[in-house]
Amino acid sequence: MKTVFKIVLLGAGNVATHLGNALFQKGHDICQVYSRTEASASVLARTLQASPVADIAHLQTGADIYLCCLKDAVLHDVLSQVKDFGNALWLHTSGSLPLSVFEPFTQRCGVFYPLQTFSKQREISFEHIPFCLEAKHEEDLQIMKDLAASLSDDVREMTSAQRQNLHVAAVFACNFTNSLYVMAQEILAYDKIDFSILQPLIEETAAKVRHAEPARVQTGPAVRMDRNVMDKHIAWLEARGEQEKAALYENMSLLIYEKSQQENKHNP
Amino acid sequence: MKTVFKIVLLGAGNVATHLGNALFQKGHDICQVYSRTEASASVLARTLQASPVADIAHLQTGADIYLCCLKDAVLHDVLSQVKDFGNALWLHTSGSLPLSVFEPFTQRCGVFYPLQTFSKQREISFEHIPFCLEAKHEEDLQIMKDLAASLSDDVREMTSAQRQNLHVAAVFACNFTNSLYVMAQEILAYDKIDFSILQPLIEETAAKVRHAEPARVQTGPAVRMDRNVMDKHIAWLEARGEQEKAALYENMSLLIYEKSQQENKHNP
Repeated sequence: MKTVFKIVLLGAGNVATHLGNALFQKGHDICQVYSRTEASASVLARTLQASPVADIAHLQTGADIYLCCLKDAVLHDVLSQVKDFGNALWLHTSGSLPLSVFEPFTQRCGVFYPLQTFSKQREISFEHIPFCLEAKHEEDLQIMKDLAASLSDDVREMTSAQRQNLHVAAVFACNFTNSLYVMAQEILAYDKIDFSILQPLIEETAAKVRHAEPARVQTGPAVRMDRNVMDKHIAWLEARGEQEKAALYENMSLLIYEKSQQENKHNP
Repeated sequence: MKTVFKIVLLGAGNVATHLGNALFQKGHDICQVYSRTEASASVLARTLQASPVADIAHLQTGADIYLCCLKDAVLHDVLSQVKDFGNALWLHTSGSLPLSVFEPFTQRCGVFYPLQTFSKQREISFEHIPFCLEAKHEEDLQIMKDLAASLSDDVREMTSAQRQNLHVAAVFACNFTNSLYVMAQEILAYDKIDFSILQPLIEETAAKVRHAEPARVQTGPAVRMDRNVMDKHIAWLEARGEQEKAALYENMSLLIYEKSQQENKHNP
């Protein structure tokens, strides 16, 4: 048995695009796409065989679910313009906004947070993406579980507080990690070495923590406080005017060394 | 045609173990394994059907290749104890030591650097690992290329200066990245959220840069300098006494934002 939902999609950015496409491909009926930029609404609506709308006043009523994939700063503003919430279920997909943002407006509400990094021009499979759900009402939670389960095999309940925690952790594991890739590419550029040389290392580093505690598989000069190598690396960066990277190198190395000392104490 | 080399392996750590196993599996003859810890030499030698040796004075002569997988700080000391370098080819596997470490001792020498992170209890496929080679003599470079090609399809020549650069970049892309995974796990522990929830995100973050410039796929609150979310995250960390992570959060976010401003200027 499969439930097909009638969905109004609010937003036309990366999350709206990827999530909208996935829902559409699973047979859900995306009836309308809202974006305050008319062109963005049109482009996405065309793909999803939906109607575009650029004015909240023209939002249709009677859908099952209103799925808000909007920037945190915009959601409250958009909600305050909605005239009729009807009896529909309203969801947002934000990692950092609590469920309670909906409370001044409607009681049938929930959070539908897919934990993934979405970029334009990159296909994403939702199959194993964790969906973190929170609902005001138990009956709505069941609807959200059905919706999430139509996309992914990893559906979890999570409170707003847990999701806030998860979002902070995700910034470290994803956003900051990507910025280290950016820095590595900038470093390699000094000798015209192509970034692709790092790809097997990057993917192995990521794959390794699937089965091992990250702290147990930490490698590199900082684990053993190899000052000789570390100082050479820092001097290399400083000689190229890369003061910020040199400072970050020192800082991260100390954090790694401290942690490895703790690890050795607990797991000698 | 395939050349089988007679190899003496110096070292019994992670690199020696993984590289020794791979060479053994490809049919090369590992005749001796040296480690100053006799037990370590014995364990690895048994796996590789080699003789263990814990005293440099008992190193056998007449092998084709002496492969030094030793800590940087130890290599010079070990070399200074070797009595007879014979006419063999001596190689080291270090990212940060120059070729010239061999020069006081022998002229037939080279660097055989596999760019990967090696941990105990984790099988590694060498198939696509970049091998970065440097040799004193052209004839030896050909031998090293044959040896590397027996393990991997990615064999490159690289000067000591380029390899030094690469090693710095690898510390950022691998060692520092893993330490971000460690921090993410520590953060999740506050709400008893299992680290495995991040695995799809971590692997997607790594896979994404295979086909895209890292700077073009940067996501998260810092790209758009979303101070509202950033301040919530920093306050969250500070409220838990995580001052170091809070400071790192601020610092990394600024680096990400600066970079994204540059990107927008060049690729509006």
